[in-house]
Formats: sequence, structure tokens, C-alpha cells
Amino acid sequence: METIPSKEIDERIKKLQLKLREKEIEAAIIAQNVDLFYFTGTCQKGYLIVPAQGEPLFLVNKSLKRAQEESPLANIQFLQSFRNLPAALQENMPHPKKIGLELDVLPAHLYLRFQKIFPQAQIVDISMAIRKLRMLKSPYEIEIFRQGAAIDRQMLDAVPRFLREGKREVEFAAEIECFLRSLGHQGAVRMRQFNQETFYGHVMSGENLTYPTFFDGPTGGPGLSPAYPQGPGWKKIHKGEMVLVDYLTVYQGYCVDSTRFFFLGDNVPELLQKAHQVTLLIQDEIIKTAKPGVYCSEIYRLARQLAADSGFKDYFMGHSEDQAPFVGHGVGLELDELPFIADRQDYPLQEGMVFALEPKMIIPGLGAAGVENTLLVTDRGLEKITIYPEDIILVEPR
Amino acid sequence: METIPSKEIDERIKKLQLKLREKEIEAAIIAQNVDLFYFTGTCQKGYLIVPAQGEPLFLVNKSLKRAQEESPLANIQFLQSFRNLPAALQENMPHPKKIGLELDVLPAHLYLRFQKIFPQAQIVDISMAIRKLRMLKSPYEIEIFRQGAAIDRQMLDAVPRFLREGKREVEFAAEIECFLRSLGHQGAVRMRQFNQETFYGHVMSGENLTYPTFFDGPTGGPGLSPAYPQGPGWKKIHKGEMVLVDYLTVYQGYCVDSTRFFFLGDNVPELLQKAHQVTLLIQDEIIKTAKPGVYCSEIYRLARQLAADSGFKDYFMGHSEDQAPFVGHGVGLELDELPFIADRQDYPLQEGMVFALEPKMIIPGLGAAGVENTLLVTDRGLEKITIYPEDIILVEPR
Repeated sequence: METIPSKEIDERIKKLQLKLREKEIEAAIIAQNVDLFYFTGTCQKGYLIVPAQGEPLFLVNKSLKRAQEESPLANIQFLQSFRNLPAALQENMPHPKKIGLELDVLPAHLYLRFQKIFPQAQIVDISMAIRKLRMLKSPYEIEIFRQGAAIDRQMLDAVPRFLREGKREVEFAAEIECFLRSLGHQGAVRMRQFNQETFYGHVMSGENLTYPTFFDGPTGGPGLSPAYPQGPGWKKIHKGEMVLVDYLTVYQGYCVDSTRFFFLGDNVPELLQKAHQVTLLIQDEIIKTAKPGVYCSEIYRLARQLAADSGFKDYFMGHSEDQAPFVGHGVGLELDELPFIADRQDYPLQEGMVFALEPKMIIPGLGAAGVENTLLVTDRGLEKITIYPEDIILVEPR
Repeated sequence: METIPSKEIDERIKKLQLKLREKEIEAAIIAQNVDLFYFTGTCQKGYLIVPAQGEPLFLVNKSLKRAQEESPLANIQFLQSFRNLPAALQENMPHPKKIGLELDVLPAHLYLRFQKIFPQAQIVDISMAIRKLRMLKSPYEIEIFRQGAAIDRQMLDAVPRFLREGKREVEFAAEIECFLRSLGHQGAVRMRQFNQETFYGHVMSGENLTYPTFFDGPTGGPGLSPAYPQGPGWKKIHKGEMVLVDYLTVYQGYCVDSTRFFFLGDNVPELLQKAHQVTLLIQDEIIKTAKPGVYCSEIYRLARQLAADSGFKDYFMGHSEDQAPFVGHGVGLELDELPFIADRQDYPLQEGMVFALEPKMIIPGLGAAGVENTLLVTDRGLEKITIYPEDIILVEPR
């Protein structure tokens, strides 16, 4: 199995250590599996201790053997159980004044245990610093995105083969999932925010495109039951309906996000056609404007203004109280990374950011339209990583 | 879409309130999506406030409309944003002395926010009380398990059609996934423990059956990359190999867990055959012995003793430092529910528990064998919910 280059891990650790020194934090203790993977190259169970200076220590409970095979880190030790953690930590950090934890994802009970291990230490949240590091992708990571995008393209090519009148949404979805998986999709999509989750993404048709749910995105979908209330449902796909394919391709851990709309028939309702054109316009104007230095909030306001100017204010990124307050989101090892292309996100685009731009219109009673691509911020502007025709794709009903 | 009967929710809330009064907790604030679903019947985004006495209040951020449609609770109110939560909580609980939160799953930063909202209150962990309630399944829930088990059976029937020499593990897995999904599998498998996750479960062959990983189970598997290191890999399935199908069927939220072993050919190595017979013996002896009142730890020790007596001590539930310290685990809306059939779990089986019993042997260099069924604890003993032939299933290589 391909493992991560040692240089990649070295640089990530060094950047984290720089942040720690800036904040006068003596050490970070990394516990979440995705952050562990980012800083060690392996997803095995354990804790990574990164001191502000010097060699990191990776304490691994299971599987030590696999961690040693996959991670280029020099100092990997066996951790028999959580009961041994206090001693191991106190040995390495006798009297820390300030330690950093991922307070956005670490469960409260673990946080309280760390408090007991270090009763004298101040515990601070290191999660934003980690998320900002992870926001800027290396050439190594960008190459993985490109490989994922090639699979995404093959999937979009195959979709018309699976799309048939009278087929249930979930059956249609199952075939796309099978196709993606066979080509190397890892299956699971990881999200960082508490309670947010998705299974491949969203595939829906017709009125189900406007079915609301908890998910922080423009579309929701019924799902198969209230227990997992998003994505494809039991509904059959009919002639004359818009069909959304907003599926992630997660390759070697990295989320590639695209959306294309298909239409079963050839008479797309005029309002949906217009809606689609407006989303393409929004995308194109953003690509003309955006480059390093431009604020994320500015890009969002441009998108919202263009939607309003075109008469689509009430449909932009959802309708009524369920409007999603953004037009793009960073992607990486998690689906909900920085940057967010949203109001009040007053920080600039930077070279190496990768985000999904997804202007969409949700029109109650009619359906939805829009486009989504995964974009890389280069020194000159935005570059599409996902490349595929963006018009509504007409499929002949069979 | 089918929604939950109001009586079901009433009873769950009443039982929680009894626990709260026992512990002198004034109110529980439920935040995790799975617990929310259990106590409200919907998985929408919000917070459920359950006072020790009286009507619960469900504050919903998104989607209010859907929460109202799906939940039989009487008091559902709109929560504009988290910023409005302090006021809403303080209005309903002016000066609480003791409140309960799910400290095992609630992220530390949310815990700290609740501390700020109620600076005078003692915050206690309510998660074990909730997990113990959820451990005992109602007739309504057991009926859903039976529906899931019917899908599991159809899947096992179909497996030999998908199993071919030279096919990659991930391609084989993709076809099983597609089959399950088309029949109503929700896709996602939820786990409660921090950093634990699985995608459908495990499908592996030959030497990959002994590939170690972080996952708390007898098998691991390579996965497609170190980023998601479990389950099927790129390896091709060969003649003369054991093939594991340990896939969850998650229907209407509930996990049905079974394992069967397939063999491509007809000459199963003797040691694997013997290992398989021992696991069947362990299962049968447990079914003869176990009933309400018998301790979980006792059952585990019986299993371990039988494995040792048969000469399989070193292979039981894994090998060397990667041995899983259990032989069964509760299933429900999450894969890792109570009870755990493990050492030191000194509490008795109770009527209404549902757990997966999975005696397995992992033999380095050779493969694995075993069986898994989802079982219901009735007043008389154990009843298999998953019913399917348990011998190694021979498949002719094509």
C-alpha cells in the first residue's frame, strides 16, 4: 500500500510546532483519527504528542505494527491502554503550563480526563490552528485530488447508463455507489462538525430535491427513513424530472466534490433552465474575480448579489428558513474544511486552498438546478480540478 | 415515510425521567443525533430538553418542518441559532443545580459552552443512563431488526453470484453493497465510541483476513489506503481462499450484524475447518447456557475457555497483541451498544437485549473462520434474529 512521503509529514509537524511556539503552547496532544492521519500518515489508534520543539512521540494502542509500517515518524511507542497514558505523558511532559487539544472534536469525557492528568496545566483549543494548516494543500495532496477527479469524471460519464424511468432513487444511487467504489472510493465521507454526516452525498429527483433536512447544505433529501434523513429515498424517478448527482469521490482519504444535473427527457422547464444559467453565471463571475487576497465573504456576497439581480434571491442555496448561508466550502480529508465561502468569513483566499463551489437554486414544487466543482486556488486565480460539461445533461427516457 | 408511534417515544422519555429523578438531575439536554432520534423520533438538528418531571421541549434549528412531521413530541420550537440557546434554556430552567449531558459524545467545546450558560450548575454525565435505556429493545424495535434480518438473508443468498476468482476484494464488496442498498440499507453505520467507524463492515479474503488495524474487532483489513485502513483492499480473490462477509444491514436505523465465511473451492484446509467447528461449538454452548440473569463476563469466559480447551487460545478473536477482548456486542441504532460480552462486564443478560455474538478465529498465514449472529434475549434464553446456514459455504471457482 502507498504510504506518505516522510518529507510531507516533517513539514506538517514543523508548521504545527511554529504555531505552538507562537501561542506559547508547550505541546499539542492530537487524538482525532483524521488529524492523526494528517500528522502521522497513519490512522491507527493512539495519541500523537507534538512538543513545541523537538521530536514528536506517537503512542499507539492498535495496531502498533501497522502504525510503524505506515508512518515515517521516528518515535512510535506501544500504549497498552488508556490507563497507561497519564504515566507516558507525565514522563514526556513533567510540568506543562499550557497544552493544546482539539476541543472541537474531542469528547468532553476525554477532555476531563486530560484535565485530571494535568491538573496544573491550562488546556487550550488547538483545533483552529490545525484546520488552518490543513486548509493549505501541498502539491502531494493536490495530485491525489486530481486522481479522485479522474474517477469523478468516469462516474459522471456512466450516470446516464444507470438512469431509467421508474427506477427508485435508492436503486439508482446504489449503482453509482457501486461504480465509484469499484474504482477506489473509500466509501466513508468524513465530516468534522458535530452531528454532521453524509453517505456519498446527495442523489435525488424531482420534488425530493426540495425535501428539507438537518444537513448544512442547499439540498437535503428524504433518505430511506427518519433515522438517516438525507439523500435518496424510495421515490421512483419519472420522466420530466431533474435528477441531482452530488456525490463525493473520496480517494486516498481526500474528498472531491462535484454536482451535475441530469434531466429525463428533453423539455426542461424554463424556470429551471434559467436557474441553471444563473448558477453557471455565478460560477463564471467568481472564477473571473477570485484569486489570492480576495476575501471569502466578498465572493459569497458577489454570488448572492448575482442571484438577487437575476430574480433568484429566494431560491439561492435553498428556500425559506432552510437557505444554506454559503456558496462554497473547503474540502480535504474532511468534507467541511476551511475556507467557507460565506458571509462574515473575512479572510483572504490563499494559494493552495481547495474548495467546492456550489451555486444552486432550490425551487419548491419544481426541483433544483446548479453546478458544483472542486477548485484549486493558484497564484493566478481559480483552477477547476473537476472538469466535466456543466449544462443540464439530457437523458432519453427508456 | 413511516414515523415512530407516539407511545414508543412517551415510554422512552418516561424512563429517562425516572433515571433523572433517581440521580436528582433537574434536566437532561440531549444533543447527539442518534440519541435525539431515539427520544424524539427525528434526527433533525437541535437540542432536546427533558426535565425530570413534565413535558420535554425540543428546540429545532433545521429542519423545523421536518421535525414537526416526524416527531410525536408536543412541544417543538424553532431555534434560530446556537446564539439563542442560552436564552431559551435559561427561560425554561432558570436556576438548575444539576444538569445531565452526554459527555461521552459531546465535543469539549460544546461542553464548555454549556458550562458558561449554567455557571452555577453541576454538569453530570448522563450517557451511561441513556445507553442502558437504549440497551433494552421494545417489541417495535425488535420488529425492525427482523425486517433487517430478512434483507441480510437475501444478501447472503446472493453472495455466491458475486464471488469470482480474480475479482478484487473492493469490486466484490461494491456488488454486495449495491445489493444491500437497493433493498433499503441506509448506507451509514453509526458508532458511538470516539474514532471508531466502519463502512458496511468487513469483506476480505485469504491473508487480508489477518491484516491488523485500529478497529475494535477480531478482523481489520487493509482498506484501500492508510487513510481508511479497514475492510476490503485491492487484493484479488484467489481459489483456495476463505472469504469473509461480515456486513451490517442497517434498516430504519437499526444494525443487524451477521458473518458467514465462503470458500472458493472445495478443499478447506483442515485447521480452518477445525477452527470453524470450534466457533460453532462456542456459539451453541453459549446459546445453551445464556438467559436472563447470566452475567456477560461469564459468557465471555465460557467462550474463551472452550477456545482454549480446543487448542485455539492464541487465535481466538485475533492473534498476538491485536486480540479483541470480547466475543459479542450490543447492536441497535449504533454498532457498539451495550451489552458487551467481555471480561469484567459483570452485569446480567436481560430480556430485550439484542447483541451480536461473533466467535472467530484468526490464524496468521492461513486466514480466519467463525460465525456471527444477531441474537435477542427472551425470557427463556437466546433467539437468533439472523437465520442462515452456518457452515463454511463452498463456492465453485468460475
